[in-house]
Amino acid sequence: MIIDVHGHYTTAPPQLAEWRRRQIAGAGSSFTEPLVISDDEIRDSVGNGQLRFQQQRGTALTLFSPTAGGMAHHYGDERTSQEWSRTVNDLINRVCRLFPENFVAVCQLPQSPGVSPANCVAELRRCVEEYGFVGCNVNPDPSDGYWTGPPLTDRSWYPLYEAMVELEVPGMIHVSMSCNPNFHGTGAHYLNGDTSAFMQLVLGDLFKDFPTLKFVIPHGGGAVPYHWGRYRGIAQDAGRPPIETLLDNVFFDTCVYHYPGVRLLLEVVGADNVLFASEMIGAVKGVDARSGHYFDDTKRYVDAITELSESDRKKIYEDNARRVYPRLAKLAK
Amino acid sequence: MIIDVHGHYTTAPPQLAEWRRRQIAGAGSSFTEPLVISDDEIRDSVGNGQLRFQQQRGTALTLFSPTAGGMAHHYGDERTSQEWSRTVNDLINRVCRLFPENFVAVCQLPQSPGVSPANCVAELRRCVEEYGFVGCNVNPDPSDGYWTGPPLTDRSWYPLYEAMVELEVPGMIHVSMSCNPNFHGTGAHYLNGDTSAFMQLVLGDLFKDFPTLKFVIPHGGGAVPYHWGRYRGIAQDAGRPPIETLLDNVFFDTCVYHYPGVRLLLEVVGADNVLFASEMIGAVKGVDARSGHYFDDTKRYVDAITELSESDRKKIYEDNARRVYPRLAKLAK
Repeated sequence: MIIDVHGHYTTAPPQLAEWRRRQIAGAGSSFTEPLVISDDEIRDSVGNGQLRFQQQRGTALTLFSPTAGGMAHHYGDERTSQEWSRTVNDLINRVCRLFPENFVAVCQLPQSPGVSPANCVAELRRCVEEYGFVGCNVNPDPSDGYWTGPPLTDRSWYPLYEAMVELEVPGMIHVSMSCNPNFHGTGAHYLNGDTSAFMQLVLGDLFKDFPTLKFVIPHGGGAVPYHWGRYRGIAQDAGRPPIETLLDNVFFDTCVYHYPGVRLLLEVVGADNVLFASEMIGAVKGVDARSGHYFDDTKRYVDAITELSESDRKKIYEDNARRVYPRLAKLAK
Repeated sequence: MIIDVHGHYTTAPPQLAEWRRRQIAGAGSSFTEPLVISDDEIRDSVGNGQLRFQQQRGTALTLFSPTAGGMAHHYGDERTSQEWSRTVNDLINRVCRLFPENFVAVCQLPQSPGVSPANCVAELRRCVEEYGFVGCNVNPDPSDGYWTGPPLTDRSWYPLYEAMVELEVPGMIHVSMSCNPNFHGTGAHYLNGDTSAFMQLVLGDLFKDFPTLKFVIPHGGGAVPYHWGRYRGIAQDAGRPPIETLLDNVFFDTCVYHYPGVRLLLEVVGADNVLFASEMIGAVKGVDARSGHYFDDTKRYVDAITELSESDRKKIYEDNARRVYPRLAKLAK
């Protein structure tokens, strides 16, 4: 069984974006308009998209969350993010109920700049306890490109981490859109977010306080595996523990869209800490005009690493996902 | 001859830091105190540092610039940066005059948040025309971690680029310190700067306007080569030219501190666009406790790539540097 731990509902029917546009336009006052989308519309939206790609590529199950760029936590205020998160998480739940064999739900959190992450706990709990979601996306920059909040190791995050540990859900550390003209969203802000988050974890003692907390850093860990020697050296110079000690708690996905990158990731980080993922349908939608294959068909790159043992390959494709997401292990037999 | 295109004067005598501390403390009023450092103190400061490493590692010549983290363009106002840049560039000039066989000078620019890069042209011209500097460091984020200025493709940068083209000096795109607690300097902000700058160039048409302008992106290009497929795909999806068209103008250095990273860099980017560099003495100062070698002894990683042809190796070690830095080619026979 091949589990893809990183998929977003980027193909939602247009009513979702319209709802959100109206909500943002009225930000500051409560927006209680129901989102009206039929089951058939949901079926169509994934049937021609993520579901078809799963079948074509031979992957079985996708951990499915709202569009990362769409979290856009900087819009409006806390209530805006609360209403938006409930609405879009409800929609993710419907997708996963309609296709329980293919999609397992991961929620976004109602973060808002300057607001305590403690205020996300109720929505996380609702998604996990009422709906059975198995993970959440944690945005390390709710300001969406200006990084005005505290690092992930700041104690203000702790109430969220306490809930994640109690509920046994890991977090994918995933920024959202960028409002900063210096940072292209998927081409800079995403990777910078991954890189910055890892370095925050190198400098902090978060996992002393939360030994069972688990994070997945997407997009192959941003710049981190490519600069693994740099991180080893910075940690050593700073008198920090070896970065490998983070590997009980920190994992990377395979959303790296060429073979040399995926090969480096596995060579450097090792098969125990890499989870298969494609980010499909997401950052790079196209077919490579040179190869004739989709850039984000990451299974091709993993399959091409012939030196992987079968047990290591199974870890990457399945076992690590079950280990990092214990609620998934209970769901997906 | 092995040319290292990325070295900083991180070992300057303490008078420099003291001068700078007093200058910052008095920011807002003119600071005309002379910097007093003797030639012998300069000789000692590099003799036990960069010069010794050059000899031990078998590199011949380093392109030498002020400490990147020390540019710290956010302090004070434009005058603060002007005075600081003149002072530290003068000091770099002295080092290079004392050791003309070993160091060739690269200047910092007197950038300041919200101030037009046009105001850097006089100092650039002074360094190049009066002193014979061969390059400059261009800080894409003079706010030092908050990215409040415009991207490198904005027309406000054009007067600087016009001067760089006229003077035949390339720019190394290098951020300075980070005031943002989310971004560790050398472990996040540096790499994020490299990544963000490349993506800005992918989206812009800068080299249509400046076909001979050249940039070196340090630290192996941040996350870029590791995510080369992602960039190819984003460019294709966005209807931009193939990213390889940037390679007439954009180059990467080898400041990647482990073998798998340097190997990926050369495999993906190719020998024509990679310049040897070590960033020595800089971001990672220590000896790897596992290997017994300095992390930043990047020559070891390049030497270990046995599949490189001799002509490709010579490009990386020497020929590309002479091509990208035409004034260096005239100086270093």
